[in-house]
Amino acid sequence: MKLLTFRFNEIDYWGILKDDGFYYSDQLMTYFPNLLSVIENIDHLNLEKDLNKFADFDQCKILAPLKSRKNIMCIGKNYRDHAMEMTNDPSSLPEHPVIFTKAPSTVIGHKNTIHAHSNVTKQLDYEGELAVIIGQKGVNIKRENAMDHVFGYTILNDVTARDLQKRHQQFFKGKSLDTFAPMGPYIVTKDEIHDVHHLNIKTYVNDELRQDGNTKDMIFSIAELIEVLSDGMTLEPGDIIATGTPSGVGKGFDPPKFLNEGDEVRVEVEQIGTLSNQVSSS
Amino acid sequence: MKLLTFRFNEIDYWGILKDDGFYYSDQLMTYFPNLLSVIENIDHLNLEKDLNKFADFDQCKILAPLKSRKNIMCIGKNYRDHAMEMTNDPSSLPEHPVIFTKAPSTVIGHKNTIHAHSNVTKQLDYEGELAVIIGQKGVNIKRENAMDHVFGYTILNDVTARDLQKRHQQFFKGKSLDTFAPMGPYIVTKDEIHDVHHLNIKTYVNDELRQDGNTKDMIFSIAELIEVLSDGMTLEPGDIIATGTPSGVGKGFDPPKFLNEGDEVRVEVEQIGTLSNQVSSS
Repeated sequence: MKLLTFRFNEIDYWGILKDDGFYYSDQLMTYFPNLLSVIENIDHLNLEKDLNKFADFDQCKILAPLKSRKNIMCIGKNYRDHAMEMTNDPSSLPEHPVIFTKAPSTVIGHKNTIHAHSNVTKQLDYEGELAVIIGQKGVNIKRENAMDHVFGYTILNDVTARDLQKRHQQFFKGKSLDTFAPMGPYIVTKDEIHDVHHLNIKTYVNDELRQDGNTKDMIFSIAELIEVLSDGMTLEPGDIIATGTPSGVGKGFDPPKFLNEGDEVRVEVEQIGTLSNQVSSS
Repeated sequence: MKLLTFRFNEIDYWGILKDDGFYYSDQLMTYFPNLLSVIENIDHLNLEKDLNKFADFDQCKILAPLKSRKNIMCIGKNYRDHAMEMTNDPSSLPEHPVIFTKAPSTVIGHKNTIHAHSNVTKQLDYEGELAVIIGQKGVNIKRENAMDHVFGYTILNDVTARDLQKRHQQFFKGKSLDTFAPMGPYIVTKDEIHDVHHLNIKTYVNDELRQDGNTKDMIFSIAELIEVLSDGMTLEPGDIIATGTPSGVGKGFDPPKFLNEGDEVRVEVEQIGTLSNQVSSS
């Protein structure tokens, strides 16, 4: 299933995406107002059967699929080639996952605009990533069981102000400006993905291919990341883990290719979808 | 006013603390179920008048005052002496605030137990801090107006697994184990504090004074922190900013004085209160 949140007749609904449009249910919405509550109660729901109202693609605006109850957790330097382009130093490859967060206020949906924040940063950059959505609560999860805790996957563009990322030492601030987490367009449930570690991931800026990676090249697998993250720290339904970006970010070029107003950034993850956002001036 | 959350007859209430006990209102609770909603609507409320039911100290258990909608934002190395005890290098004093986060799942209340997580960390440490609660939403806030956005203050113990903090490079994981953010006992509204940059802050472990600082020694003032944080990033009601810790953390001693099971950590901030928590084995 492909789950999403959309606006239709000025009301925000959640529903599922099929070939001909979106399916939703006013009745289910009264009990489960958003996708977070759907994820928490998925075992008691029969969405294919109960979402019996239809909305045409043309009548709807896609929104960010999910508002989580905490910051997005992100993995830094989880692709060898990206770690190398950032540091040019093999000894800097992480022996343990590098984990930072983005504020929930960064989240925007497919086709929403990324603000350039040109008064705050001169080094606006993109990072196309596969994101994991946690389904089942857990702590001290072993990697053998980790995938049982996954609900599904989506795409996240970990937009970054490189100058702020450096200036403040810890990454949070440079990663957390408003609109810095385009996410979606929808969440694909894990049963639809045969091998999550064999997906092409590509980022285009104005149709120029910049990132061309594959999830098989992650240094720490999704199961390992869940094991490490949940060590002493409870993971909850709706938690979002952005699994890191392959090489080809703007900062990795010489000279750097940072984003400018008007640029369109498109992240494609095989079997998941395409997330597209334009950079606006404000 | 001193606002708090407490359990009484197995129900969780919010209310205010007075000399003789807690005052609350079932009726207001139906509209404003928690302190986050109270903070968002404080301009329309007359709490002194409307909280007309009484509960005795002895009948209640104090809970963490607030569940925010995002991670707690924390400032690293915001007291010169603490920065020096951690690095012994004057050039490491931050020129810009170092900002990291703690997951909301870390939050516990006054007298709740801090879990030692002895299977995950061998270097359990404390950091007594003044925490700011944001009242009014804002972005690009100038320092001159910053204090208008403050709702009040509380105490936060930024419990830290030093080995994890180092192992994962970014601080998030070492700061975010379950129970690693004792907070409270209550929120003091800003009108009660004459000069927030003239408050003694002391941390005791088993009655031994470990940290003995004053908020006048912050490198970046609260107004400066709000200016920097809100630069391009919207601050929202209920956001929590832990403003950094003075010198005297366990890692600062030679040999280090890390926390052990059974230890009692008590953080006192002048005019705010006393936050006390014991370390348990699990």
